[in-house]
Amino acid sequence: MIPKTHPRYESLLLREKIVKASEKGYLADSAMIAHGRGEAFDYLIGEKTTYPAKRAMYVAVAALLLSDNPVISVNGNATALAIDEIIELAREINAKIEINLFYRTDERVQIITSLFRDRGYKEILGTLDDDIEYFTDIKNSRSSASKSGIYTADTILIPLEDGDRAEILKKSGKNIITIDLNPLSRTSKMSDVSIMDNIVRAIPFMTKIAKDLKTQDKKVLMDMVNDFDNEENLKESIEQIKIRGI
Amino acid sequence: MIPKTHPRYESLLLREKIVKASEKGYLADSAMIAHGRGEAFDYLIGEKTTYPAKRAMYVAVAALLLSDNPVISVNGNATALAIDEIIELAREINAKIEINLFYRTDERVQIITSLFRDRGYKEILGTLDDDIEYFTDIKNSRSSASKSGIYTADTILIPLEDGDRAEILKKSGKNIITIDLNPLSRTSKMSDVSIMDNIVRAIPFMTKIAKDLKTQDKKVLMDMVNDFDNEENLKESIEQIKIRGI
Repeated sequence: MIPKTHPRYESLLLREKIVKASEKGYLADSAMIAHGRGEAFDYLIGEKTTYPAKRAMYVAVAALLLSDNPVISVNGNATALAIDEIIELAREINAKIEINLFYRTDERVQIITSLFRDRGYKEILGTLDDDIEYFTDIKNSRSSASKSGIYTADTILIPLEDGDRAEILKKSGKNIITIDLNPLSRTSKMSDVSIMDNIVRAIPFMTKIAKDLKTQDKKVLMDMVNDFDNEENLKESIEQIKIRGI
Repeated sequence: MIPKTHPRYESLLLREKIVKASEKGYLADSAMIAHGRGEAFDYLIGEKTTYPAKRAMYVAVAALLLSDNPVISVNGNATALAIDEIIELAREINAKIEINLFYRTDERVQIITSLFRDRGYKEILGTLDDDIEYFTDIKNSRSSASKSGIYTADTILIPLEDGDRAEILKKSGKNIITIDLNPLSRTSKMSDVSIMDNIVRAIPFMTKIAKDLKTQDKKVLMDMVNDFDNEENLKESIEQIKIRGI
């Protein structure tokens, strides 16, 4: 048990979730390393959601609400950190959820599938029963997607994604929204909307935004999306990274 | 195999070493997360040794050469990343090496001991055969040390250390030299000499410095140590963290 008085209590709770997920066997080998990188960047923004991240989230939700076939892509880390929040967001914006693993193994897919089904979320895609399609001639798990999910989606929300994978999705013509604490990553740079935030703060905030934006006229949402400049917003995100002195 | 042309080749090689060490069973649960944090900070300094780090290394080597009983503390990550380099440095500066684990288990101690002995380094301390002493009344692995090693050392070089542990060692009156990529960590702040660098670059560089400084008069080394201001040097280290734009 981590004492609540510990100066890094929240961060240590998340770390514990990742360690447990690793023990359960549904994380990739280097998933914990990726989490550590995120921890460092979150630390550098004061573990708070920044204004440019909030702006990106509004645009992201608008884009998702305007989409015909939005899909949320989940991997082991996203499941470990925010499974309930992801299900809630998916229901709010009427998006599908697909298990999409960079290092796909049947065992990991099976465990993650069970975790979603245990929570009453039966319509999860990307499971072993699904038809898998490939975006490239090289048929590996990096380029694979569920036929009724990401493969045919128009907009994809990807919390925590590898750069290679993001590139493949972008090249295939998808609208890409990413949540990535590193604003300098390839994933952040090549996405249409890049949210520099911790998914445990971003996902529930996006659900709240969705409740609000759903009451808006479509024209308003379209203007939000069209007015957004991701490159400019990423620059502002980078400026939020403050090296606090000693 | 990681292709040599990959833009993050060196970093991925280290990541692979950490993943393998984890599979071998000698890393703590959260060791990979700690590595990821280090990766992020290393990325932010351009994966190069900065000038303040070099200055700290010169002072560190001078302090180690002046010590009566210097000890290098190693954990799982340090072993995975730089075991050969650590042995070389220890021999060059005539320091002992002690296995000192924050989450000590017999299995992890045994594996790390074997790795050192396999390399012909038989005099490793902190093994299961060693007398273990405790710095505090709370007798857990965080406060434990080998009687002939860290417990009686005057100067300790600690690559990659937890803040709690660093605090215990500092309170016990030791001279603490740390290698930590996060210049804002508690470990960095409370050490006598804090080297903000990746241990895979720092350790071999310190061996080179040792070859040089060994030819110097003791008075010169003492002046180096006395003139050094760790707080000031940490401030300069922090200034080296550049958020490179896009």
